[in-house]
Amino acid sequence: MAQSSTSAELAQAGVAQPLRIALAGLGTVGVGVIRLLEANGALIARRAGRPIVVSAVSARDRSRDRGVDLSAYGWEADMTALAARADVDVVVELVGGADGPALKLARDALGGGKALVTANKAMIAHHGLELATLAEASGAPLRFEAAVAGGVPVIKGLREGVAANAVDRVYGILNGTCNFILSTMEDTGRDFADVLAEAQARGYAEADPAFDIEGTDTAHKLSILSALAFGTRIDFASVETSGISRILAADIAQADALGYVIRLIGMAELDMGPDVGGAGRRGLFQRVQAHLVPFDHPLAHVDGATNAMVVEGNFSGRLLFQGAGAGDGPTASAVVADIIDIARGIEAGFEADMPFSVPVASLEAMAPAASGHRHSRAYIRFIVADRPGVLAEITAAMRDAGVSIESLIQKGRADNEGEVLVAMVTHEAPEAAVSKALGLLDGSPSLVAPPLVMHLLGN
Amino acid sequence: MAQSSTSAELAQAGVAQPLRIALAGLGTVGVGVIRLLEANGALIARRAGRPIVVSAVSARDRSRDRGVDLSAYGWEADMTALAARADVDVVVELVGGADGPALKLARDALGGGKALVTANKAMIAHHGLELATLAEASGAPLRFEAAVAGGVPVIKGLREGVAANAVDRVYGILNGTCNFILSTMEDTGRDFADVLAEAQARGYAEADPAFDIEGTDTAHKLSILSALAFGTRIDFASVETSGISRILAADIAQADALGYVIRLIGMAELDMGPDVGGAGRRGLFQRVQAHLVPFDHPLAHVDGATNAMVVEGNFSGRLLFQGAGAGDGPTASAVVADIIDIARGIEAGFEADMPFSVPVASLEAMAPAASGHRHSRAYIRFIVADRPGVLAEITAAMRDAGVSIESLIQKGRADNEGEVLVAMVTHEAPEAAVSKALGLLDGSPSLVAPPLVMHLLGN
Repeated sequence: MAQSSTSAELAQAGVAQPLRIALAGLGTVGVGVIRLLEANGALIARRAGRPIVVSAVSARDRSRDRGVDLSAYGWEADMTALAARADVDVVVELVGGADGPALKLARDALGGGKALVTANKAMIAHHGLELATLAEASGAPLRFEAAVAGGVPVIKGLREGVAANAVDRVYGILNGTCNFILSTMEDTGRDFADVLAEAQARGYAEADPAFDIEGTDTAHKLSILSALAFGTRIDFASVETSGISRILAADIAQADALGYVIRLIGMAELDMGPDVGGAGRRGLFQRVQAHLVPFDHPLAHVDGATNAMVVEGNFSGRLLFQGAGAGDGPTASAVVADIIDIARGIEAGFEADMPFSVPVASLEAMAPAASGHRHSRAYIRFIVADRPGVLAEITAAMRDAGVSIESLIQKGRADNEGEVLVAMVTHEAPEAAVSKALGLLDGSPSLVAPPLVMHLLGN
Repeated sequence: MAQSSTSAELAQAGVAQPLRIALAGLGTVGVGVIRLLEANGALIARRAGRPIVVSAVSARDRSRDRGVDLSAYGWEADMTALAARADVDVVVELVGGADGPALKLARDALGGGKALVTANKAMIAHHGLELATLAEASGAPLRFEAAVAGGVPVIKGLREGVAANAVDRVYGILNGTCNFILSTMEDTGRDFADVLAEAQARGYAEADPAFDIEGTDTAHKLSILSALAFGTRIDFASVETSGISRILAADIAQADALGYVIRLIGMAELDMGPDVGGAGRRGLFQRVQAHLVPFDHPLAHVDGATNAMVVEGNFSGRLLFQGAGAGDGPTASAVVADIIDIARGIEAGFEADMPFSVPVASLEAMAPAASGHRHSRAYIRFIVADRPGVLAEITAAMRDAGVSIESLIQKGRADNEGEVLVAMVTHEAPEAAVSKALGLLDGSPSLVAPPLVMHLLGN
């Protein structure tokens, strides 16, 4: 065997310096990281070229029994002190929250030239460009694989796997809680509130579930994927966001009869629409919305808390990345993959200064694209009073707005006497036409509740 | 915006040196690489931190019209001369063949300190360790993302995405030709030979299809994935390999009735079996075999020429990577992703010396694990003479070998009068027991053809 003095061989000979990390946050993910490093430490040292060791940790309660032995690690009651420790190369932030101590820690670490690894999607969605700018200036790596799709390497897939491509579209199932609820409703025929309560009991949904079920969490992740896919500035504020709380068991049954399942999809694409600000100008379209997904689409088979991302490159074609979107093991797997990347490259500064694949200054500030001109097929469901003429009123509004109806079903609601459910699928139409039709019906006393619109995902 | 002098900004300012590549082979993939660099050159330069330029090319026929303008590039009639050119940083080998000029070019390039990017699975399966050793010695990167699963970044997924994990198992659909044939048989009810002829006519199958349909191509790819997943030496010779040419339309219909599709699966896992060479010693199990895949498994929905890899890590859980497994665009996408990785890291030698993620010297030479002790459920199909007593003979052999039958169907063959098809699914049993049962039937005049065994893929 030829002899050379690579860093890996030096590591085997015990020469390479360990990479020293500090963990802020010892919830399930933080403890997962410690467990992972304990279980796989030897192989990680081989792959990283040097051992990865924990120097210090910080959490709210030092005395709590977490099932792992923390006695070998330094302790900081104030987590922001981790960034100042001389015995730390990489700060791992697993506390969460877009602002507050997590953000201060991130700023201090990167500003001081220490690498930062984080699973904090809210912080990256809101402050990722500021942090990346700090990272560029100091040369300290900033990595956030665990912030999107848990253990699935979607960030790496976009930054590196499809690096040769102009990306046309990125979309996926990015929130495990919503997907668990929707696929359980589908399997059991139960109603949303009932399944949400079960998800909360099983720890799949937070006590305050709004962040997940109203689509905010998906929007955070989507805004990060958009920036990586299109080389645009993160624009969380422009993500058109809706959730799943208004979906009925009857919607799922109706979708099933038509050959679809319902999934909450975050989708982003470059849009050449006319309303973006001038001929030929591109806009960035970002939407989180429940969609009808045809049975033969790969996302139709993503069940439970699984996440999946589809990316369409102009040469790669459609790629799918799928796996566990949350949980201590998968999230720790992504966190430590980032740490290994840093261990492999930190001496050289490999990409350390480009968390978004290109310099922050060259990310395009792209105008948001509205949806009105988009041609789509839509599922529209009304709950209406059970009396003569209502169906005529709805279909007339569709006709007057130029929306052609492909199929329609009307059925009584067993549990709400006097109410009827009307569900239709439109032919492809500009979304503005559907909005116009709904506008014509707005305020009609026939409508018992606001209509629910879900678009159909193409193949 | 803070100013710093990252390589990317230098590149924008026109300072960074271009990365100069040479292309050996101008078939569809080589031309795809040129087209890709032309179409996406500006964004690639941004992401790579510097432009990627083609210095020279080599192919058999200089005059052939390939639809791209080659006049700006140097020409070498002898492709091995590319490795010696002073104006080349990266040699891209797209010629194929395990040995011959491709191997000489690879040795010359890496030995001379030039990076090598290749899509050549046969060469890596047979000579990957030698080439990686050369790469380690010279510090020149060796990359082969395009060798497995076309445009799907499965090599990167294993090397980096799941780097924090001990991998339990890796398996997948790795040959687009076989998958096209099987899924077309499934959709149309047509027979193997008929669909193969169509695949050949459409360019999805080679004129000599043996390499694909007998499983060799899948075995090449599997042996590469095994080495990356488990840190073992590539052991192509030990892959237990069978193909799809004996699968009948009746098998597919029967599988469908039972809730399965048939897919050619390459599978590798570490095996603690008793026959590996001592208690507690692990062996490497590698097999290419058509499997019955349950409808609710993600691989059951992989149709046409699509490839998919599943990797199960001890923390990540099950990850799925899916996309186009061949074609000029997807393969070029993977080739150029490797080139971009090299452009980003070459100055620093990032991982340049570890093509298999750890030093070649530390890859384990693991004994192959046999399959006899594995507990599996199997689909076994016989073609037998249509006369009394045959079913009793088969079922007696199963009983005598200790194989319990879960379901069995017997049906006449419309097209072969006097022959009957008997298909069964066994309960879980040691594979040795199934082999014993088939041994008892070996040479029986009742059997018109050798039985076909396909295992059932678990969930």
